[in-house]
Amino acid sequence: MADFLTKRSDNYSQWYNDLVIKADLAENSAVRGCMVIKPYGYAIWEKVQAKLDQLFKETGHENAYFPLFIPKSFFSKEAAHVEGFAKECAVVTHYRLKKDPDGKGVVVDPDAKLEEELIVRPTSETIIWSTYKNWIQSYRDLPLLINQWANVVRWEMRTRLFLRTTEFLWQEGHTAHATRKEAEEETRMITDLYANFVQDYMGIPVLKGCKSDAEKFAGAIETQAIEALMQDGKALQAGTSHFLGQNFAKAFDVQFTDKTGKLEHVWSTSWGVSTRLMGALVMAHSDDHGLVIPPNLAPIQVVIVPIYKGDSQLDMISETAVEIKAGLEKRGISVKYDNRDTRKPGFKFAEYELKGVPLRIAIGPRDIENGTLEIARRDTLSKETVQRSGIEEYISAKLKEIQKNIFDRSLKFRDENIFEIDTWDDFKEQIEKGGFLSAHWDGSRETEDRIKQETKATIRVIPFDAKEENGVCVYSGKPSSRRVIFARAY
Amino acid sequence: MADFLTKRSDNYSQWYNDLVIKADLAENSAVRGCMVIKPYGYAIWEKVQAKLDQLFKETGHENAYFPLFIPKSFFSKEAAHVEGFAKECAVVTHYRLKKDPDGKGVVVDPDAKLEEELIVRPTSETIIWSTYKNWIQSYRDLPLLINQWANVVRWEMRTRLFLRTTEFLWQEGHTAHATRKEAEEETRMITDLYANFVQDYMGIPVLKGCKSDAEKFAGAIETQAIEALMQDGKALQAGTSHFLGQNFAKAFDVQFTDKTGKLEHVWSTSWGVSTRLMGALVMAHSDDHGLVIPPNLAPIQVVIVPIYKGDSQLDMISETAVEIKAGLEKRGISVKYDNRDTRKPGFKFAEYELKGVPLRIAIGPRDIENGTLEIARRDTLSKETVQRSGIEEYISAKLKEIQKNIFDRSLKFRDENIFEIDTWDDFKEQIEKGGFLSAHWDGSRETEDRIKQETKATIRVIPFDAKEENGVCVYSGKPSSRRVIFARAY
Repeated sequence: MADFLTKRSDNYSQWYNDLVIKADLAENSAVRGCMVIKPYGYAIWEKVQAKLDQLFKETGHENAYFPLFIPKSFFSKEAAHVEGFAKECAVVTHYRLKKDPDGKGVVVDPDAKLEEELIVRPTSETIIWSTYKNWIQSYRDLPLLINQWANVVRWEMRTRLFLRTTEFLWQEGHTAHATRKEAEEETRMITDLYANFVQDYMGIPVLKGCKSDAEKFAGAIETQAIEALMQDGKALQAGTSHFLGQNFAKAFDVQFTDKTGKLEHVWSTSWGVSTRLMGALVMAHSDDHGLVIPPNLAPIQVVIVPIYKGDSQLDMISETAVEIKAGLEKRGISVKYDNRDTRKPGFKFAEYELKGVPLRIAIGPRDIENGTLEIARRDTLSKETVQRSGIEEYISAKLKEIQKNIFDRSLKFRDENIFEIDTWDDFKEQIEKGGFLSAHWDGSRETEDRIKQETKATIRVIPFDAKEENGVCVYSGKPSSRRVIFARAY
Repeated sequence: MADFLTKRSDNYSQWYNDLVIKADLAENSAVRGCMVIKPYGYAIWEKVQAKLDQLFKETGHENAYFPLFIPKSFFSKEAAHVEGFAKECAVVTHYRLKKDPDGKGVVVDPDAKLEEELIVRPTSETIIWSTYKNWIQSYRDLPLLINQWANVVRWEMRTRLFLRTTEFLWQEGHTAHATRKEAEEETRMITDLYANFVQDYMGIPVLKGCKSDAEKFAGAIETQAIEALMQDGKALQAGTSHFLGQNFAKAFDVQFTDKTGKLEHVWSTSWGVSTRLMGALVMAHSDDHGLVIPPNLAPIQVVIVPIYKGDSQLDMISETAVEIKAGLEKRGISVKYDNRDTRKPGFKFAEYELKGVPLRIAIGPRDIENGTLEIARRDTLSKETVQRSGIEEYISAKLKEIQKNIFDRSLKFRDENIFEIDTWDDFKEQIEKGGFLSAHWDGSRETEDRIKQETKATIRVIPFDAKEENGVCVYSGKPSSRRVIFARAY
């Protein structure tokens, strides 16, 4: 099966597209830029959702649901916001079709034109803050900590499965606070929550920091982000958390009475991660054989494949397989026993390699005689023969080891690909090779724009943990007090 | 708080609206016909989702996600289907806004007109079957058992929170089978699954049966439905399961090679339940004091309210409350301890009554002395004093008892409101009073239409378990072999 995959070294981009499709994660639909998320891909997304949802609830957030449509007039109430999103909006203008008077099919009924057009939400700040106005009167109504799982639409010109699609699935948190400090703390808490999730569950190390003004969310005072490094040396923004100040509260006139009876505008944040994470998961760990899925997110953690000739051998092996499956499931491990007789073991091995199942157990007649099993790890592609007794503990421990190994490998790769760059020549040379370039920047929008124009590199983050350090801007030579992270990005 | 509710006997419809809003389930949004589902309402919906999702997976279904948008040309490929939905479609015609040249704000950019308009999905048969065409070649690819959790849009002229909204949340199953028999069995299996869920979790008894041709899904060969009776004697369709025959397979040319090598069109089903179920839940059980939520779906199953004067009493009571909470949570019971000092106990009692929390535990200083607790049931509004020791078993058992009582009460009401009607005069009289009218019908569309015109009653179901019985149509006097169920419906 892996023969059908382009090799990463030949064409990384093609390898990614091939893999997403052949591993049954997603495919392009008949609707331009919209994808179909297939069952196997969706099962991984469900695991992402379940864990994030738990983390949001543990930190006091509740889920709610707001309308898909946003009246055009709401959309334009926050100036920077509409400026940022106006160019990529799907617009509903009519509410009825009618039979085509000239023949078959249907046409839009011109009599059913909306008085005010509706925008399909590209993000929900405006519709949510128009609602919060009625929910918030007093400091007692704060903080308001709400999350929404939803689909959103941004009319992208160039789309790629998971990474950039016209419609995508995401969660968007929208919180309201009585003080600036509280809203800032929420913004940062969520950045840390995202970073921990991506590291601990997706096995991907991230850099945390702030965006430059050029890269921040349309309507935010500050945007924080987590940035991951893909195997081709390009960066991927994996999540953002925005401190919105009082911008949306002012745009929608949301005020509250504080404890002293004074009327004040509310402080707010918004934050989100999307099905884009699925793209990061694929690109960070997978190889020329197929997906490598960290055990914490794998829909199937262990697959058991019987090696047999004839029914009596299969029966004997099945007895053991079913027992092992039950034992593992008792420990919360998800197991598939693939006893299809329409496919040979070699075919199955390749299929589960392609699909990134972390551990494969093969059982043949000799294993039954000897009380052994053959275990293959997807992350290292290594095999070993182990004793059947105690297999539950062994598999449990092995899954943890794989999770750790996948992260450690990614961390090593990432750390080896952060480069301190001090001259413009080095910058230009290194950016062609990829990686995170840690360089001084003079803080001006002009320099940032020029660097982008000349190298396609953008400032990914101004790291939270950047050291104070006197230096000169890698481009302009002007003074700078700390390094920022540049990269080409997805 | 309940003083703010209209009484059911005064105006049932107003009572419903009041209750949905005051109990914080949902509210109307700024977008015509679209609702905001508030955190408390959404928490109930999440419980509905979680249980249904489990039931779907246990019966072999997988989740996937298909695009929000459907190209207009796809939409019109199945003739009956487009006829049924064309009049209520939100249509996307443009993909960009631009600054209003005449002033502030934004306008639709006329240069960004789509070549082909996109329909916001009112249901996904067409986009899904256009996809299945590529997924199904051989009998080995069947059955294909897929479910989607999604938002859909139907441009309704008169909307009511949960019951009929322009946008709503739902799940839609779309399955493909090699034989007619298999697809028919799936259709029926899902009807039973829905019925069991609504009865066992929502505590609402339902009638199961087929729809008449006039009432069936646009594009179906047969529509099965579950119908519930609300307290005002009106029926509510709580879920539908459609046998689609080969209609969509033919419209999208989805064929498979069977075991003998013959090419055949695929057989299919689709089925769904929506946030409408929330409306049924409210209308079936609640009373003039507020919601009554069956324990199996209650976000908070038990609330503990301290009755105290001064901090030292509160501290003493809190110690006990926290202990009880922990003990109940260990048994998987969700508990809220409401120790807010900004609200009096009476206020809290009314609030949790309004919100339908099944059990309330009040603890005062004398209870601590005596080792007792005061327990109030929401369903019966009865109170009793019980011993604190063994409280976990007591509460566990009580929650089961409440779940059963709510169902039994609804069943009794429903059964008392099924009327065998044999004359047109009786029909006209009874339909004004409400209930399910079991009557003979001659099977013609004409009679069905006239009955609807004259009485607003529709055929809710032709029950699966209807007895063969010679009779004459209640309207036309023509012969009939079994009774069907008429009612006015939501």
